[in-house]
Amino acid sequence: MPDVEDVLKEVDRNMPTTIEKLLDLISIPSISSDPIGKPGIEQAARWLQDELSAIGFEARIVTTPGHPLILAHAGGTTMADTAGLLFYGHYDVQPVGVAEDWTHDPFGPQILEEDGRHRFYGRGASDSKSQLWTFIEGLRAWKAVHGGFPARIIVLLEGEEESGSQNLPAFIEACREELACDIAFICDSDMWLPHQPALTIQLKGLVHEKLTVFASNGDLHSGAFGAVAANPIRILSGILAAIHDEDGRIAIEGFYDGVDPIPSHAREQWAALSRQADPLEKIDLRGGVIEAGHSPLEAIWGRPTVDMNGITSGNQGPGERSVIPGYATARLSFRLVEGQDPEKIRECFRRFVRSRLPEGCSAEFEGANGSSAVTMPRDNPFVKAAARGLEKEWGVPTVLKGSGGSIPLAQQLKDTVGLDCIAIGFILPDDAIHGPDERYDTERLHKGIRSWVRILDEVQHMKR
Amino acid sequence: MPDVEDVLKEVDRNMPTTIEKLLDLISIPSISSDPIGKPGIEQAARWLQDELSAIGFEARIVTTPGHPLILAHAGGTTMADTAGLLFYGHYDVQPVGVAEDWTHDPFGPQILEEDGRHRFYGRGASDSKSQLWTFIEGLRAWKAVHGGFPARIIVLLEGEEESGSQNLPAFIEACREELACDIAFICDSDMWLPHQPALTIQLKGLVHEKLTVFASNGDLHSGAFGAVAANPIRILSGILAAIHDEDGRIAIEGFYDGVDPIPSHAREQWAALSRQADPLEKIDLRGGVIEAGHSPLEAIWGRPTVDMNGITSGNQGPGERSVIPGYATARLSFRLVEGQDPEKIRECFRRFVRSRLPEGCSAEFEGANGSSAVTMPRDNPFVKAAARGLEKEWGVPTVLKGSGGSIPLAQQLKDTVGLDCIAIGFILPDDAIHGPDERYDTERLHKGIRSWVRILDEVQHMKR
Repeated sequence: MPDVEDVLKEVDRNMPTTIEKLLDLISIPSISSDPIGKPGIEQAARWLQDELSAIGFEARIVTTPGHPLILAHAGGTTMADTAGLLFYGHYDVQPVGVAEDWTHDPFGPQILEEDGRHRFYGRGASDSKSQLWTFIEGLRAWKAVHGGFPARIIVLLEGEEESGSQNLPAFIEACREELACDIAFICDSDMWLPHQPALTIQLKGLVHEKLTVFASNGDLHSGAFGAVAANPIRILSGILAAIHDEDGRIAIEGFYDGVDPIPSHAREQWAALSRQADPLEKIDLRGGVIEAGHSPLEAIWGRPTVDMNGITSGNQGPGERSVIPGYATARLSFRLVEGQDPEKIRECFRRFVRSRLPEGCSAEFEGANGSSAVTMPRDNPFVKAAARGLEKEWGVPTVLKGSGGSIPLAQQLKDTVGLDCIAIGFILPDDAIHGPDERYDTERLHKGIRSWVRILDEVQHMKR
Repeated sequence: MPDVEDVLKEVDRNMPTTIEKLLDLISIPSISSDPIGKPGIEQAARWLQDELSAIGFEARIVTTPGHPLILAHAGGTTMADTAGLLFYGHYDVQPVGVAEDWTHDPFGPQILEEDGRHRFYGRGASDSKSQLWTFIEGLRAWKAVHGGFPARIIVLLEGEEESGSQNLPAFIEACREELACDIAFICDSDMWLPHQPALTIQLKGLVHEKLTVFASNGDLHSGAFGAVAANPIRILSGILAAIHDEDGRIAIEGFYDGVDPIPSHAREQWAALSRQADPLEKIDLRGGVIEAGHSPLEAIWGRPTVDMNGITSGNQGPGERSVIPGYATARLSFRLVEGQDPEKIRECFRRFVRSRLPEGCSAEFEGANGSSAVTMPRDNPFVKAAARGLEKEWGVPTVLKGSGGSIPLAQQLKDTVGLDCIAIGFILPDDAIHGPDERYDTERLHKGIRSWVRILDEVQHMKR
């Protein structure tokens, strides 16, 4: 009977094809939050359905009022009757943003040798096409060598993660029985260090708000009326500037209701991790305002934040236009910790804005997302098995870490299906996810695939 | 010999053609601040050259490194040897802005009957194609009846007024002898009330600044780094929110250096005007912050201001993008009063911004414009003649007023050619100049043309 080494050899052998296919997938512009991405979304969904079918999955495209999901099943040969593993990834990507800010073609990836690494650039290179490709290729190699899987496998690929997962809750509710299994592996998270793997066992909640402040008039000539009429840029700037106090705390009334201090055991573990290495060393923290009394890691993993993602009003150039705009728009995201309710946070924010609006001006809000923070159990046997598998591949202990990011799916799977989730992934801080020149490298792709093979092997040998 | 009534009759007779031609001119998209406007600029310049030539002017297109000017001359028959009148208008227009904010086609004007007025909408309808058309048609009618002009006439039409008049100073310097005359009539200003004409004898200076704040990193994932990294929207909002204090005064150090209090005689005249009627009644002043201790009219005409014209950063939609942007941009304009030097004001602002930048962040500035305030002499005989002419047409006294707007030309003509300027125009507050649905009406066009005929007649009978 073949063993794990045989599967790892199959992974190694197939790398040229693995890379070629991945670059093909990255070249599909599957942007979910912009209508221009719709053809790319559909193309990527079919592409993935075909790949999963080729490995032997019963794979189908599940349509939603938004973008489709791919749901694929395969029976297990070892723990077939009882155990089931769900692998989650998302195939949609963020918008490009400002095209001129990219040095590389966001949808024309190539392998480039840089600093001894084989890098590839592209929107979705890191978040999250390479990531989902690690487990699909791991499953492929396993199947190729063993002729089957060590457990019943469910693969779930989402097409709306970057646009708020609006249709995911209804899908999970509708397919709750089909999704039932023992553990969900969410492959959309990061490593602790470039060569030290991690399980993310704490995720933040997420709320998006789009706020538009309307002045009491439409656009006006700024010379004629600038001295007397409401300027929505000025009003919006004042509101945004009031969100944080001088200590970097959120000044929105009620924002911290229900938030407990970070437990001392967590603070200690995180402090020990920080002493070992600084995962933020590639990021210039100058100019940032970290909440007083907290280390950077505590602020990111353990404290709720308000982030401004975009602002627009009036003249966008290229030349000058002497106008007082009629309205100004800001987009904000809120990252929540345990104890915070997304809809209550939304209401606090809206109250905060309304209370600061001058007479005669008005505000319109458009909300998206709305998920709570989740914490995963450290003592789950799958957590331990996954940690062992990662450790064997990377040769260093697996870190149990928190995150500043959010995966609304985790809360929904827990609430609806009763499923615990473990986030495993191989993103690094300088992958520029969501930014221009998003990137990944072939070494992490390779070791990522091998990691999943080792995790499957550990799961196969788990005592149940 | 024909008299003024004959010329006025010719104006009345020709109105259908006058309107038809004007709508044709407005339909040319002569946007000066955006490269897309270049063909429209060139078309409008030729159109106007042809019209002036048809009236008997020696009209030429003067090229510049930017957009061309039209300079036209005609000899006088009455005061030919000594007196010369310069008529200034600009044929370029503001950009459309947000196209969806317009109810009417910005470049497809039609006459619509509304509230008993015959209105037409379009970019440049009010600012300033109808305005320049009033004096061209006035001159045409005069010439048609008299066969010549009562004085030597210079017509100067600019194509860069809405984009900073960057090439006007060099042109004036180069053509200073050709521009020498007795008075310049600048037709780019407003009435006091819908049926009460005005001479604008005080204009503000103007400085534009485009400010970009760069954070210490490029775009970052807002979940991963929002708690710790600099957010340029937050920094820029803080800077913009600090520009005004609670009393509506500008908190930029040095901004008021050299600014004297508004003289009491001016305050008294303006207060008397305000008691008579409220020219701002169509504007909702709620939410505006008027500098403490000043009436709205004093703030507009007599006090310097800082106005935010535009802001842009990060996600512009349509969907969400969870990003901390790498940079944020704001566009501001400064309206100056006597005693303020434009370049000193620019420096004050840049110092203000730099002193508020967190460590690791930087700012880039792009400056445009730079003109001082000007005040015109009340006792100039042409001021008196023009006031008499306007009064005869409108049947009510002509108001000598200030303005919140700026016409950099006035300072340049004074400094370089020693020429005094009188701003006369027929704009009203609800013409929405620079905004969507910019408009004008045929009654003002008609009476505006007649006004210039009466002014020419007064000038003809001036004692010299």
